[in-house]
Amino acid sequence: MSLRLSPRAAIRLPLLNSRGLATAIHLPKVSRGPTGIVLLNMGGPSTIAEVYDFLYRLFADGDLIPLGRYQETLARFIAWRRTPKIEHHYEEIGGGSPIRKWSEFQATEMCKRLDKLSPETAPHKGYVAFRYAKPLTDETLNQMQQDGIKRAIAFTQYPQYSCSTTGSSLNELWKVTRSLDPNSEIKWSVIDRWPTHSGLVKTFARLIKDKLKEYDEKVRDKVILLFSAHSLPMSVVNRGDPYPAEVAATAHSVMSELKFTNPYRLVWQSQVGPSAWLGAQTSDTVKSLVKKGQTNIILVPIAFTSDHIETLHELDLEIIKETKVESIKRAESLNGHPMFIDALADVVHNHLKEGALASNQYPMQCPMCTKEVCSNSRRFFLNQ
Amino acid sequence: MSLRLSPRAAIRLPLLNSRGLATAIHLPKVSRGPTGIVLLNMGGPSTIAEVYDFLYRLFADGDLIPLGRYQETLARFIAWRRTPKIEHHYEEIGGGSPIRKWSEFQATEMCKRLDKLSPETAPHKGYVAFRYAKPLTDETLNQMQQDGIKRAIAFTQYPQYSCSTTGSSLNELWKVTRSLDPNSEIKWSVIDRWPTHSGLVKTFARLIKDKLKEYDEKVRDKVILLFSAHSLPMSVVNRGDPYPAEVAATAHSVMSELKFTNPYRLVWQSQVGPSAWLGAQTSDTVKSLVKKGQTNIILVPIAFTSDHIETLHELDLEIIKETKVESIKRAESLNGHPMFIDALADVVHNHLKEGALASNQYPMQCPMCTKEVCSNSRRFFLNQ
Repeated sequence: MSLRLSPRAAIRLPLLNSRGLATAIHLPKVSRGPTGIVLLNMGGPSTIAEVYDFLYRLFADGDLIPLGRYQETLARFIAWRRTPKIEHHYEEIGGGSPIRKWSEFQATEMCKRLDKLSPETAPHKGYVAFRYAKPLTDETLNQMQQDGIKRAIAFTQYPQYSCSTTGSSLNELWKVTRSLDPNSEIKWSVIDRWPTHSGLVKTFARLIKDKLKEYDEKVRDKVILLFSAHSLPMSVVNRGDPYPAEVAATAHSVMSELKFTNPYRLVWQSQVGPSAWLGAQTSDTVKSLVKKGQTNIILVPIAFTSDHIETLHELDLEIIKETKVESIKRAESLNGHPMFIDALADVVHNHLKEGALASNQYPMQCPMCTKEVCSNSRRFFLNQ
Repeated sequence: MSLRLSPRAAIRLPLLNSRGLATAIHLPKVSRGPTGIVLLNMGGPSTIAEVYDFLYRLFADGDLIPLGRYQETLARFIAWRRTPKIEHHYEEIGGGSPIRKWSEFQATEMCKRLDKLSPETAPHKGYVAFRYAKPLTDETLNQMQQDGIKRAIAFTQYPQYSCSTTGSSLNELWKVTRSLDPNSEIKWSVIDRWPTHSGLVKTFARLIKDKLKEYDEKVRDKVILLFSAHSLPMSVVNRGDPYPAEVAATAHSVMSELKFTNPYRLVWQSQVGPSAWLGAQTSDTVKSLVKKGQTNIILVPIAFTSDHIETLHELDLEIIKETKVESIKRAESLNGHPMFIDALADVVHNHLKEGALASNQYPMQCPMCTKEVCSNSRRFFLNQ
């Protein structure tokens, strides 16, 4: 069950009734489209030249890394310091992040399926809005306005909700909308989480099964599955961010789909800086298991849907290649897998059928969060 | 899928084949019982007089609270210091913990159902073994030997596995077995976790629905559900303990059963001492929500199956009563609910049908754990 769209947003045809109030009618079965579907994600630099800007935007985001009143200055400094190293990482994975390529492919293919599944909201037009790389939210919103979009869905590509990820993207979308679409000509609804969508879960399970086939049958059901998700600072966890619990729900659902054939653990990657982060850490876990002689391991990126630096560099090069153990592998990312594209289309189709503004979880801010932007953006998206 | 019982353990009738090796035959449908089923739990002092001993055992347990080489001395000191305060808490909840009463009731009722469900393993005899209160493991094992039990199931009453809880109970059972049953006359299998068993999940959902009915229909689907579980020190979390992820899986399954009607969060209670523990803390969360005016809240104890001091005192008196807000309530504990007893019987029945030694997760120690007792007890239970 979810929060329902107001009728006005659903059909975009308000009529005045006898008391002069807007009232809703149900249109005959003609298309209410076009429907814009915006895939929200963090993004990554497509070229080496974009690395500094990407890092600067990342460290300037107080929703992701709160650095206080000197956020912008610090962000410039940290980005400048880290750029050479990160440029090198991107060089090592082929000169840039493939996340834009995958996101645009996913958007296009998903919309083709949606046109068939839901002709009454066709045509479906797919967009991508990244938080830290091009295409940024303002560029995407400009394009949507040029395309005459009046009804749009903000579809997070983080299946599990965190204030640091989906929250930050929605805050940004709200801010950009205020300046570019002050009269709210585009009516929005939000897909804010989908951690245990059956298509998502089945695709993860399929990719794990495919990888398990690379092991000898004798050891196959002893292979340890390490579901790895981007970690969070404990300050964010302790504020009540729902992400750790939702990631765990995804991992458990995938194991359930696999009938719990294998031992597994949920571990956390990409910790940076000196503060406390949620563990166990992926890198420590792999090292400890190798030390114990448990070297049949599959790493499963469970909170990223497309390959980017955290899979291609951190998991593949820094963690797996470092061990020099061939039986440590990684499950493929969802990327362009047809089952995953079907899943994306199904998530949106269900959302359209339900006529939902957002999930029932979305209106609730983190219990210990007092940030105004988080309540303002919620108010905006829940009053469409 | 789970690890299978060796045929010998399953039918306890080894025959010698032509090469002198034990071989298995399938018996005709006569009872292979009696089957002992031991409910493992932490326990609590049934009377005020038992409080010191309970606290001493708790702080002396290095699996729960590692205090190093002076563990025993420190345990005596801490227990002595805390006894008066904790005695007072037990006085406030009626003079003792009801956990023994509930556990014995659950064991008896579960066995009645099992005798009908699984006549081939009847009679089923229920036992209770507490880690820190009477009946302790040695007392229970003595009783089982007197009763002539040769086949037993160690059934954890912590649905979600932690090294601090189920791990500690199994380590203790292994240690006591070594001295009281050195020839392993009792053959064991282990139910080491059942976080998303459908009967468990449905009972939680039912108890939440029952509590929701106490709210006016107009606010009912706005009531915030706070699933509250005992927290863990971050040192245990970061070692790779599976508990946080399994608790999250339970909460998500219950929400799924409730069709996600309400906003919810998973929060963590009972933190003690100065070190870092996993949050968000239950008490902070309730206080913050009240401060924001969000006062329709149901606390749901999601990792305890019976009432004890953490529900009756910490949640009911320290957290809920303190707020003086009537719309903050607690869902009943599972205790003696008939749906829960059915669930217990179903968990054991499935285990018997499957002929499993343990779950596929059990053989895997925490990645960063190097404790010998944890590998020894595993070896014992996996070689029955």
